[in-house]
Amino acid sequence: MHHDPSVTHTVGHLIDGQIVADAERTQPVFDPATGQATRSVALASKATVEAAIASAEAAFPAWRNTPPLKRARVMSRLKVLLEEHADQIAELITAEHGKVLADAHGELQRGIENVEYASYAPELLKGEYSRNVGPGIDSWAEHQALGVTAGITPFNFPAMVPLWMWPMAVACGNTFVLKPSERDPSSTLLIAQLALQAGLPPGVLNVVNGDKLAVDTLLQDARVKAVSFVGSTPIAEYVYTEGCRHGKRVQALGGAKNHAVLMPDADIANAVNALMGAAFGSCGERCMAIPLVVAVGDAAADAVVAGLKTAIAAMKVGPGTDNGNDMGPLVSRPHFEKVRAYVDSGVAEGATLVVDGRSLQVPGHEEGYFVGACLFDHVRPGMKIYQEEIFGPVLGVVRVQSLQEAMRLIDEHEYGNGTCIFTRDGEAARYFTDHIQVGMVGVNVPLPVPVAYHSFGGWKRSLFGDLHAYGPDAVRFYTKRKTVTQRWPSAGVREGAAYSFPSSR
Amino acid sequence: MHHDPSVTHTVGHLIDGQIVADAERTQPVFDPATGQATRSVALASKATVEAAIASAEAAFPAWRNTPPLKRARVMSRLKVLLEEHADQIAELITAEHGKVLADAHGELQRGIENVEYASYAPELLKGEYSRNVGPGIDSWAEHQALGVTAGITPFNFPAMVPLWMWPMAVACGNTFVLKPSERDPSSTLLIAQLALQAGLPPGVLNVVNGDKLAVDTLLQDARVKAVSFVGSTPIAEYVYTEGCRHGKRVQALGGAKNHAVLMPDADIANAVNALMGAAFGSCGERCMAIPLVVAVGDAAADAVVAGLKTAIAAMKVGPGTDNGNDMGPLVSRPHFEKVRAYVDSGVAEGATLVVDGRSLQVPGHEEGYFVGACLFDHVRPGMKIYQEEIFGPVLGVVRVQSLQEAMRLIDEHEYGNGTCIFTRDGEAARYFTDHIQVGMVGVNVPLPVPVAYHSFGGWKRSLFGDLHAYGPDAVRFYTKRKTVTQRWPSAGVREGAAYSFPSSR
Amino acid sequence: MHHDPSVTHTVGHLIDGQIVADAERTQPVFDPATGQATRSVALASKATVEAAIASAEAAFPAWRNTPPLKRARVMSRLKVLLEEHADQIAELITAEHGKVLADAHGELQRGIENVEYASYAPELLKGEYSRNVGPGIDSWAEHQALGVTAGITPFNFPAMVPLWMWPMAVACGNTFVLKPSERDPSSTLLIAQLALQAGLPPGVLNVVNGDKLAVDTLLQDARVKAVSFVGSTPIAEYVYTEGCRHGKRVQALGGAKNHAVLMPDADIANAVNALMGAAFGSCGERCMAIPLVVAVGDAAADAVVAGLKTAIAAMKVGPGTDNGNDMGPLVSRPHFEKVRAYVDSGVAEGATLVVDGRSLQVPGHEEGYFVGACLFDHVRPGMKIYQEEIFGPVLGVVRVQSLQEAMRLIDEHEYGNGTCIFTRDGEAARYFTDHIQVGMVGVNVPLPVPVAYHSFGGWKRSLFGDLHAYGPDAVRFYTKRKTVTQRWPSAGVREGAAYSFPSSR
Amino acid sequence: MHHDPSVTHTVGHLIDGQIVADAERTQPVFDPATGQATRSVALASKATVEAAIASAEAAFPAWRNTPPLKRARVMSRLKVLLEEHADQIAELITAEHGKVLADAHGELQRGIENVEYASYAPELLKGEYSRNVGPGIDSWAEHQALGVTAGITPFNFPAMVPLWMWPMAVACGNTFVLKPSERDPSSTLLIAQLALQAGLPPGVLNVVNGDKLAVDTLLQDARVKAVSFVGSTPIAEYVYTEGCRHGKRVQALGGAKNHAVLMPDADIANAVNALMGAAFGSCGERCMAIPLVVAVGDAAADAVVAGLKTAIAAMKVGPGTDNGNDMGPLVSRPHFEKVRAYVDSGVAEGATLVVDGRSLQVPGHEEGYFVGACLFDHVRPGMKIYQEEIFGPVLGVVRVQSLQEAMRLIDEHEYGNGTCIFTRDGEAARYFTDHIQVGMVGVNVPLPVPVAYHSFGGWKRSLFGDLHAYGPDAVRFYTKRKTVTQRWPSAGVREGAAYSFPSSR
Repeated sequence: MHHDPSVTHTVGHLIDGQIVADAERTQPVFDPATGQATRSVALASKATVEAAIASAEAAFPAWRNTPPLKRARVMSRLKVLLEEHADQIAELITAEHGKVLADAHGELQRGIENVEYASYAPELLKGEYSRNVGPGIDSWAEHQALGVTAGITPFNFPAMVPLWMWPMAVACGNTFVLKPSERDPSSTLLIAQLALQAGLPPGVLNVVNGDKLAVDTLLQDARVKAVSFVGSTPIAEYVYTEGCRHGKRVQALGGAKNHAVLMPDADIANAVNALMGAAFGSCGERCMAIPLVVAVGDAAADAVVAGLKTAIAAMKVGPGTDNGNDMGPLVSRPHFEKVRAYVDSGVAEGATLVVDGRSLQVPGHEEGYFVGACLFDHVRPGMKIYQEEIFGPVLGVVRVQSLQEAMRLIDEHEYGNGTCIFTRDGEAARYFTDHIQVGMVGVNVPLPVPVAYHSFGGWKRSLFGDLHAYGPDAVRFYTKRKTVTQRWPSAGVREGAAYSFPSSR
Repeated sequence: MHHDPSVTHTVGHLIDGQIVADAERTQPVFDPATGQATRSVALASKATVEAAIASAEAAFPAWRNTPPLKRARVMSRLKVLLEEHADQIAELITAEHGKVLADAHGELQRGIENVEYASYAPELLKGEYSRNVGPGIDSWAEHQALGVTAGITPFNFPAMVPLWMWPMAVACGNTFVLKPSERDPSSTLLIAQLALQAGLPPGVLNVVNGDKLAVDTLLQDARVKAVSFVGSTPIAEYVYTEGCRHGKRVQALGGAKNHAVLMPDADIANAVNALMGAAFGSCGERCMAIPLVVAVGDAAADAVVAGLKTAIAAMKVGPGTDNGNDMGPLVSRPHFEKVRAYVDSGVAEGATLVVDGRSLQVPGHEEGYFVGACLFDHVRPGMKIYQEEIFGPVLGVVRVQSLQEAMRLIDEHEYGNGTCIFTRDGEAARYFTDHIQVGMVGVNVPLPVPVAYHSFGGWKRSLFGDLHAYGPDAVRFYTKRKTVTQRWPSAGVREGAAYSFPSSR
Repeated sequence: MHHDPSVTHTVGHLIDGQIVADAERTQPVFDPATGQATRSVALASKATVEAAIASAEAAFPAWRNTPPLKRARVMSRLKVLLEEHADQIAELITAEHGKVLADAHGELQRGIENVEYASYAPELLKGEYSRNVGPGIDSWAEHQALGVTAGITPFNFPAMVPLWMWPMAVACGNTFVLKPSERDPSSTLLIAQLALQAGLPPGVLNVVNGDKLAVDTLLQDARVKAVSFVGSTPIAEYVYTEGCRHGKRVQALGGAKNHAVLMPDADIANAVNALMGAAFGSCGERCMAIPLVVAVGDAAADAVVAGLKTAIAAMKVGPGTDNGNDMGPLVSRPHFEKVRAYVDSGVAEGATLVVDGRSLQVPGHEEGYFVGACLFDHVRPGMKIYQEEIFGPVLGVVRVQSLQEAMRLIDEHEYGNGTCIFTRDGEAARYFTDHIQVGMVGVNVPLPVPVAYHSFGGWKRSLFGDLHAYGPDAVRFYTKRKTVTQRWPSAGVREGAAYSFPSSR
Repeated sequence: MHHDPSVTHTVGHLIDGQIVADAERTQPVFDPATGQATRSVALASKATVEAAIASAEAAFPAWRNTPPLKRARVMSRLKVLLEEHADQIAELITAEHGKVLADAHGELQRGIENVEYASYAPELLKGEYSRNVGPGIDSWAEHQALGVTAGITPFNFPAMVPLWMWPMAVACGNTFVLKPSERDPSSTLLIAQLALQAGLPPGVLNVVNGDKLAVDTLLQDARVKAVSFVGSTPIAEYVYTEGCRHGKRVQALGGAKNHAVLMPDADIANAVNALMGAAFGSCGERCMAIPLVVAVGDAAADAVVAGLKTAIAAMKVGPGTDNGNDMGPLVSRPHFEKVRAYVDSGVAEGATLVVDGRSLQVPGHEEGYFVGACLFDHVRPGMKIYQEEIFGPVLGVVRVQSLQEAMRLIDEHEYGNGTCIFTRDGEAARYFTDHIQVGMVGVNVPLPVPVAYHSFGGWKRSLFGDLHAYGPDAVRFYTKRKTVTQRWPSAGVREGAAYSFPSSR
């Protein structure tokens, strides 16, 4: 592996512009392709997290008073630095997460788009001005910064998800404490260091690595005004409840089980192509992955199962450092075992396992966390592989007889993150997009992740809170409204001037 | 009192378009000017609240599909009906709350402005459309209705505060369950009946009267997606924590202790005038009232105390049914006693009681809850009358030596609802409005309540949540974002037509 | 005919709140169903138009200072009055224009929607506010009223098109001089009188009837700041050139020749239904009418021609006062003759006249200007009936072999007002809406007139100017931007207070 | 002078990505500090301009289909290139225009801000989306590119003013033909070349140098859809009339005579400082310069005249290549003579010439076009130096006795570009900003040029058209609205699927 000099053997924290190694507690960081620990990461103590918060609080007054245009320009410079360091960042992602390099580059690219959006801050922060709300009275609303804000991010997008949060938060004038995933901390930290290099003052962005202790400290400290979270639904719910209980604003994004509906008129070849990436890209470890296809009619179901089977046979699985591979390993040994157990349970519950990837071996990487693509047919609601988020390369086909039946399934599911319909028919697409109880909807787009200038968020138990992540909603989440109403007394210098001066002639 | 035939002796609930009397538990409703119970109000059981929620849930699908323009037109018609019934509504407010009729009319007028704003729904609900987010891919965001939403409102504005909530909620396509204050329920209910008359389908707006049991049912029922609350800070915090714990979005507006800063250059006569209304209007029972003046410099302090003393001497206190009175009674006997106890404590803690209204008697209304205006000088931080929300006609003057000192006091206070500065100086106003940690700021405007097309909300412990009440923020609070990403397969009817038809010539 | 007391035998002007009869020149107003003159209309002299401008100029300062909310409320009241007087207005339209009463009601309803939109003025007029454009510098933009504005409107929508213009103009704080069509002036005038009744101060809206002299006076008078025009393209071009030459802002909407594309997969029965209304409604005298169907493939062409032939056979033509009729007379005798001549020319140029309405007789209305629906097949570019706007009940079918060919025809045509595609296919609709060089595009909607909260405008020679009519663009057209940049000197009362007072203790 | 290899001895055109030297007609380019011709510039023939238009037209379809985000990124890259080449650009500006290098850098910086704003295109181009404008009908509005657009720019800001125009035009998807000033063409051309280097495809931006022939060709060619112009008022009026006559949309910014009002309470030292830069910066050759101070009261007038006299005595005038100088030469010999003649006329008409800069000599630069700062007191309306735009370092003081009198003067002046008030008083500032008939207003800001995210434009005869330059208005100016209304037939694949498939089981 490429050795990166900016990463120490123990990944530390970034507090007040300095790398701080917190030696008391550490945890190993593994290379999922080999199963070997390659470095360790410091786990922050309560005092360390509080030091980060204190740094952010101290940096706030000056940063808040920095004109939005100047804050935005730090983002523009960061964008250039991220492009320049893209290879290095992608390598760190692959080394700790396992995803294929091209996919790591893709992740970074989406993150860069959020940095671009944050660079629009002068436009995004415009308030509303009303002359003459009453006679001689004017009023305007501003979107002012909150103060110290925080983010807690998951392992599956160590570069992108943090970039959903802090660039917009700091562009809005806040300071930030980020607690990234302790499983793949290095790319996150490098990006934060590049932000300093781009001109972000020390203390405006702090990174603390850690575990539940760090999370709880952020949720409970009164100086933290807002918390953004992305992770699993149980933790999202905990973060939302606990953060709100401490009077904060919280947006907590949780799990997903995204269904793709395949209509009888869909272009099957296109759909198969799209589904391969959506189901198996990044080993299925994406909250926008498609683990379920709902085929309307047996003809569509038969065709898509046949097409997927053929396509899976052509997939290459191996270490992410080789861009010739389509899929890398899962992130960790416990997760590897959990995913295989899900496949076992699907067989046990009666689904038809069309392709079985459990026994895959990658020569020379026998200790890596590799699972081959698995395809189930005849999956039914109630089965564990239907209800639960597997976060692995397991795709199930559900057979229904109408769009209405497909939509009922989706609406009855616990999650409502993303969904997609494959069809050529305008009416079907319109009906689906209007009524489906899901926050992000694709029409022939299997991963309808909104672009950076729209916002990301699911419905139902996929998101707790009222504002979505990044895009326009992030401006609202990271600012509070101040409304000024102004009237001036009538007898000021104006009349004074008018009456007093003529007599001086 | 004018007898209103639409109000039965026991004020019931409005569920599914019908008045429902829930006989099991009731509570008396008093006329604060006489201390007499004039009617009773039903207190909803859990089953009654659930029936209201069920009605709202059943009404949702059709209402959500009703075009926004048609929903908006119900608001336009309601506006006309509210204007036609203004006298009747104001009389009900005065009879149960005690405020002077002119003030009740003023309250209704502000509520009508929220109905007007809700009638702009077709404009307010516009989403964002992006052609070509990628080659051949379009994306747009919609603001879709949530489903069943709920509001819990306080005694002090029985007409206005409910109108902050449900008109915008239903204009956005939601259905609503309102739990108004049980102390003055009649005007609220009449307005809801007028909404039906204006064309709101049964079940779209339901009203349940009740107590904590009703509140908890709303907070815990999974069918309720969002809760708006206005009341005291402890209850607001409870509602926020409890509602969020059940996965809902919540906005909870709490208490206030608004400071007005008097600068040395202020127009004292104007300021005195403004402060009289802001401190004593509606007997100080407003979360935007000014109970504290912070005078910068002793000259300003001396002048404003002298001016207020003179003005208070000219005030008329008596029943709200007589528009010749400036101030009516407090809302209830317990509150009457609590306010008097605050005045006692102020004296005990060493503030100078310049005007003492405790012994006021209104002839013929000896049992009414009347307290005269009270004025303290030399109030200091730490005193109970400085720290706590009194919600009565008690105005305190704090003396400081600089604007910075005044602002530090305000920023260190628990609440951050409203504040105001009296000055002629542009720079002082700019510095104050930019930096003060308060959500609604007036410049020579003592009650900077935002107009209906801006949003209402305090900072610090005056509001829990991230979106403010009414105005633009209410559109976001009462809708959730759905983002659609759309690509069409390229080989559709278009190419089919292009290739097949020429050969048929 | 219903006799309306507000309409005198000679229709006069409305200047400064008074009806002014300008006796020097008049012109008869005809009932198109009978060919009889029923009243006359005054034709304004230059002095009369200048009096109207002077009235508008005098009314401007006070109206401009009236808070937007108060201006908006006049619109709300006008809406109610228009609904109350709908029958009377519709009868006046039918009596002078000829269209069927139900159609006149429809026209009025669309006009009312523009009044509703104007009532959103407080929201629409919000400017943009930026704190800290530089250190200590704030900036905001306002949309201020222009002053005197003017509108010149056509005969075909005497109620609706004026309501596209002046309600938004006056809601923005301008005053207005309207010159409606002299062929059907009565409904326009009645509506203006209702606006006064709704609370519009005298002089804010003035109406002058007249001819080119009135138009030229408005275009040349320096006090008129903006002109909105709807009419034919040659006049629109003249108005644009002449108005711009006098330094004004001008939006001039001209003619149209809207094509509907029928794809092979279209639902033919639906399309026929839609086309009947779009081609023959209001006798084809609409700039959004569909006079041309472009059928892709002969199968679609054959089917639509057959369907239209059958449907035309079932049409009822007769006086507009009878709602049982589908189509009334043309507006005037010269126009009646012009339309028949177009049909003659189509035959002469070789198109196939499938249905010939030229010889239609309406018993008892032999002098009325009735022409029956005409249907041509095999219309080709270059024919007069293809190139020119007929503004009569003449529908032509053009046959092409691909969507690309259909779009080329449309893009090469002089006009670009409206168009429509009939298809079920999402891709075809997307390609068409993205690329077609037309301003208003329908997908299975034959008359894609934007709703009042969007804006109306064609492309190419259908509109001269850069902002469309009504909706959001109208706010920009009827206001000018003022941008304020503000910094306060630092050593004001604030520091004065801070330094001087402590020493005075 | 630094020799720039990209500038040939004869400055050519940039057409279709290539430098084209058009040898037929040329004109010398002078160094104003020495009076020497340093190079020549080609003057385009009609055919050359038409070639540029043809190139732009050919480049349009592909560029228009390029996703906005990709177009925006060209702007981000251009920003970086402009920062990297800032010294070279500034040197070219100074060499041909004469302004001091620091001022040239300042100009470029403002231009870069417009490039930044153009990089927000994905956000700025969002259209408005309305679900359910009627039952089952959706509508949205897009802002589509116009096609070929053009800009004609003045000598005084050869870098900045072109950057007001084409970056936003091309970011919106248009292609562009720029005709810059022939007096200082080199920096403009270099910037265009950098845009190509940043990734702008050939033909998207073309530059033609030339004179009236080029201007007229652009105004008359039907392929050019929109023209932006900045220059003097007579030419602006010609461009507006002529462009509109050819059916285009035109925004034409003309001259100015900006008044600064000095209130009796103003901070005189600050005001003098501010006025020195505003009056004499860039030798007064700015449309936002302040050539007139209106002092309210003789005390303020006496003080400001005294202060200015002292400050002028300390000014350094000399070649712009020396940053130690405060002011460089005028742009050309004819202009040098014209400015001196204005000073002569002021003396002749009776104004008091307090400081006379006419006889200034810069040693070693005797042939340079240097005029020293001139200060007049007792200037009065009617004098040529009051009425006309001098565009030189001549500042006049007008004495009035009230703010109302000052405002009347401003409002009666032909121009309404910029103005400013110096005061501490909130009420005076509010009254002034609300009522003054000027488009850009400063409060204690002498050059209230809006930041790039607001828009630039004057009122009265300072701007012809309805949309201002750059900022939000530029998005509207460089796009046309397309409104789509969409309904899908109900019996599509959805019902088909629902009914047909169950029977197939």
